[in-house]
Amino acid sequence: MPESYRKAEYVFLANIDPELQLEVLNQVERPKLIACDTMNFWIEGKREALVRTLGHVDILVINEAEVRQLADEANLVKASRAVLAMGPKTLVVKRGEYGVLVFTEHSIFSAPAYPLEEVFDPTGAGDTFAGGFMGYLAATNNLSDETIRKATVFGSVMASFTVEDFSLNRLRKLSWSEVEERFRRFQALTAFEGL
Amino acid sequence: MPESYRKAEYVFLANIDPELQLEVLNQVERPKLIACDTMNFWIEGKREALVRTLGHVDILVINEAEVRQLADEANLVKASRAVLAMGPKTLVVKRGEYGVLVFTEHSIFSAPAYPLEEVFDPTGAGDTFAGGFMGYLAATNNLSDETIRKATVFGSVMASFTVEDFSLNRLRKLSWSEVEERFRRFQALTAFEGL
Repeated sequence: MPESYRKAEYVFLANIDPELQLEVLNQVERPKLIACDTMNFWIEGKREALVRTLGHVDILVINEAEVRQLADEANLVKASRAVLAMGPKTLVVKRGEYGVLVFTEHSIFSAPAYPLEEVFDPTGAGDTFAGGFMGYLAATNNLSDETIRKATVFGSVMASFTVEDFSLNRLRKLSWSEVEERFRRFQALTAFEGL
Repeated sequence: MPESYRKAEYVFLANIDPELQLEVLNQVERPKLIACDTMNFWIEGKREALVRTLGHVDILVINEAEVRQLADEANLVKASRAVLAMGPKTLVVKRGEYGVLVFTEHSIFSAPAYPLEEVFDPTGAGDTFAGGFMGYLAATNNLSDETIRKATVFGSVMASFTVEDFSLNRLRKLSWSEVEERFRRFQALTAFEGL
């Protein structure tokens, strides 16, 4: 790994062979946060290596079906608890057009997906989410539960732009004020008062 | 219809033949609010009568698939707009374990379902939601957007209890403080700060 990468403080292990993920990790000197993606292929074919990698991971970001497969449990709350017991302190469960659930030992956070009138191509939505999520945490350099919630919404905001056009076309021309505006729309989308 | 029913101010037309729904409506003297349910069977077989009924309805409460079928449109935002154009000022879209979306002309509200560790039987969840939703509106006698949001969460709270046991067993022994406590959990589930 290039020398400069070894000093990375925020590490995201993208969806590759879990043995390679661990090798990458071994080359990073002193990460503040390690997040990780995986998929059905590794859960089925490299479970042991994957579980070993998960022992070193702070945040696991996978989809709903993968959580159930990894835990071998249909109920999502029970499955999430089982996955947290494998090592990650935080489990981010992607549910496509239904949004994201974030599980920690003591709390659950639910973020909706933004209801869009035009979805050109959902390709890359999950990766954009992960990028926005990690970028927000790295930029704020804060790992509180509250910041993880904001990072989740921030990732959802970014993903909502990605699906509006093919490839990176929408992100290429995105302005910061559009990001802020959509973040406010997420707030308006979910706000309600006490009983 | 019994005389006392004719004075009802909050009317919920449950899922029966839309021609009968209209007959029921004609017997109610001066309702403040008319809400309505329907299903694929009537959307397919009695579309004209259903659209006639919808012209008299304030709030339509149906599931995601029914919205798409009624509007003949796959995109949920576009489909919801088309359904609102049929008469209802508010469209409540039930999405089972993924929660509820509420569409009005100018806003969208997203309420999650409560992530439960034990789901014994989802039978009746949608009807319990509708009952809790209508009951909250009738009890507060307020039809503001904000109250409709709270009624949506209140209905979701009630539905989350129904699925915890068979039939009405859980609701029968439910206390008001349990309802309040779960409402606060919905707040904790969805809360996040500004950017």
